[in-house]
Amino acid sequence: MGEFELIRRFFAGAPVRRARLGIGDDCALLGDIAPGQCLAVSTDLLLAGRHFFDDVDPAALGWKSLAVNLSDLAAMGAQPVGFTLALALPEVDEPWLAGFAGGLFELAALHDCELLGGDTTRGPLAICITVFGQVPPGLALRRDRGRAGDDLWVSGPLGAAAFAVRERLAGRELPADHAARLRLERPVPRVELGRALLGHAQAAIDLSDGLLGDLGHLCERSGVGARIDWPAVPLGDSLAALDEADRRALALAGGDDYELLFSAPASARAIIAGLGAERGLAPARIGCLVAEPGLTLLCADGSPIDRHELTAFDHFR
Amino acid sequence: MGEFELIRRFFAGAPVRRARLGIGDDCALLGDIAPGQCLAVSTDLLLAGRHFFDDVDPAALGWKSLAVNLSDLAAMGAQPVGFTLALALPEVDEPWLAGFAGGLFELAALHDCELLGGDTTRGPLAICITVFGQVPPGLALRRDRGRAGDDLWVSGPLGAAAFAVRERLAGRELPADHAARLRLERPVPRVELGRALLGHAQAAIDLSDGLLGDLGHLCERSGVGARIDWPAVPLGDSLAALDEADRRALALAGGDDYELLFSAPASARAIIAGLGAERGLAPARIGCLVAEPGLTLLCADGSPIDRHELTAFDHFR
Repeated sequence: MGEFELIRRFFAGAPVRRARLGIGDDCALLGDIAPGQCLAVSTDLLLAGRHFFDDVDPAALGWKSLAVNLSDLAAMGAQPVGFTLALALPEVDEPWLAGFAGGLFELAALHDCELLGGDTTRGPLAICITVFGQVPPGLALRRDRGRAGDDLWVSGPLGAAAFAVRERLAGRELPADHAARLRLERPVPRVELGRALLGHAQAAIDLSDGLLGDLGHLCERSGVGARIDWPAVPLGDSLAALDEADRRALALAGGDDYELLFSAPASARAIIAGLGAERGLAPARIGCLVAEPGLTLLCADGSPIDRHELTAFDHFR
Repeated sequence: MGEFELIRRFFAGAPVRRARLGIGDDCALLGDIAPGQCLAVSTDLLLAGRHFFDDVDPAALGWKSLAVNLSDLAAMGAQPVGFTLALALPEVDEPWLAGFAGGLFELAALHDCELLGGDTTRGPLAICITVFGQVPPGLALRRDRGRAGDDLWVSGPLGAAAFAVRERLAGRELPADHAARLRLERPVPRVELGRALLGHAQAAIDLSDGLLGDLGHLCERSGVGARIDWPAVPLGDSLAALDEADRRALALAGGDDYELLFSAPASARAIIAGLGAERGLAPARIGCLVAEPGLTLLCADGSPIDRHELTAFDHFR
């Protein structure tokens, strides 16, 4: 099967409604960004062995490849519009491609996010998706909008995905339908919540690399510090049986949760809880932003936790 | 050096004028697409050993990575706006990164095309650029706009880049300043010509995989056939000393030229020649589109050339 037949068979069948010109030309043409909105753009490159296990279910991989990008849109409060897909494949494996495309388009359809175009080549498995959304620029949730005194929230429980990775690396792979493994392999981007937060929340970031690291980015860009009340951090159910040190490591420094971390004024507390509940979520208020730079982690009794053993994931460390 | 320091050092220094929000957040925000224009989007994934030699000069690689994407914009007649860069690197090699970024931003500045955002990770060298431009949708040059009877043009000489590849593979690498090697390593995307052709040319495609293969795509999408007058095909100077079979193989089936192939009515001949000359180019009329599907290659005496030995590059064959 050649490159063009591959594209036709597996990727060109999706409905095109929003694009003026979709797959098959040098460029896709995208019109009709809503008046007063601007285009939000994000790109992620996923590599076998680094971002996913080589033997991952292809449908889960297709889902997750788009999910991590939609999560970036969610963190701006942007509405998904479309995406491009660049794919390097070691071989043309038809069942694998059918699975991958199935998972990808399953999530794309849920968010009315069209495949606009792409590129395929032979090589070590790599997936690069660039996603487009629209958002009113004045309302967009931005990393640099954090203000001292605002509450810090997370959109859901943390640590389950990192638990699934840890079990796998320890040779104890969880069943495919285990909640923690689903968290890792089929994360649910918080797109609707992100959009609903426009006008209520100020700063946001999605939790891909771990709470402490991602919070650090938000604080750095906003020129503020943060205080986290560790007992208020919601934990994945899979963490219940673990000891305290493991729970902290997984929930605070583990990645791949794809929940939103966001800040909002105290006046928005009831609204945010309601917006979450309407979407089946339980956003948790886990601390606040403070004027002094730096991060403080507090136990239930208010004493600080030494966080030197917790380091966020950095792709080059 | 961590991921964020790497981005800061090598990629975050470029001026941001058009983007409302550039590098450093979950998404870039891009506003102000000109009224009446739509967004043109293209993505390309380049892999070491497949799209470039492992030891390629990093500045040339940075240039070419963006050039192949700008060439896709050129083939639509779109004006460059910005791009995202996803980069997998085997290690943090500072001189290499400085060279790569230098070549990349050199070409970006020539076309006022801003780096909007990106992603970096550790892995086998891979570069995925997604480029954005703007074009009036009704005028965009499209592969499916070819009409029987229209002239076929190429924007410049063909075959030199393929010659440079062939020499390298035969152990006869050309000097770094050889015209053919510059063609391969620093292709010049025909962005200005593409924009100037709006309203004059109809269909276009950029020549990345070889004239015959890319012409085949244009014909297929347009539902037409083509006749090429082989003596009218302009050849790179490097091909002059080769025998006829080699010249044909390199100019007709060799890739990486990044000239434009486009169709236009006969009434536009003088205008097109003038638009080319104003930009230092000599567009050549190499044949025409015909109603019957299929491709005919003709010698100077009008006899057909057997093209079965000429096959276009396909990433999966």
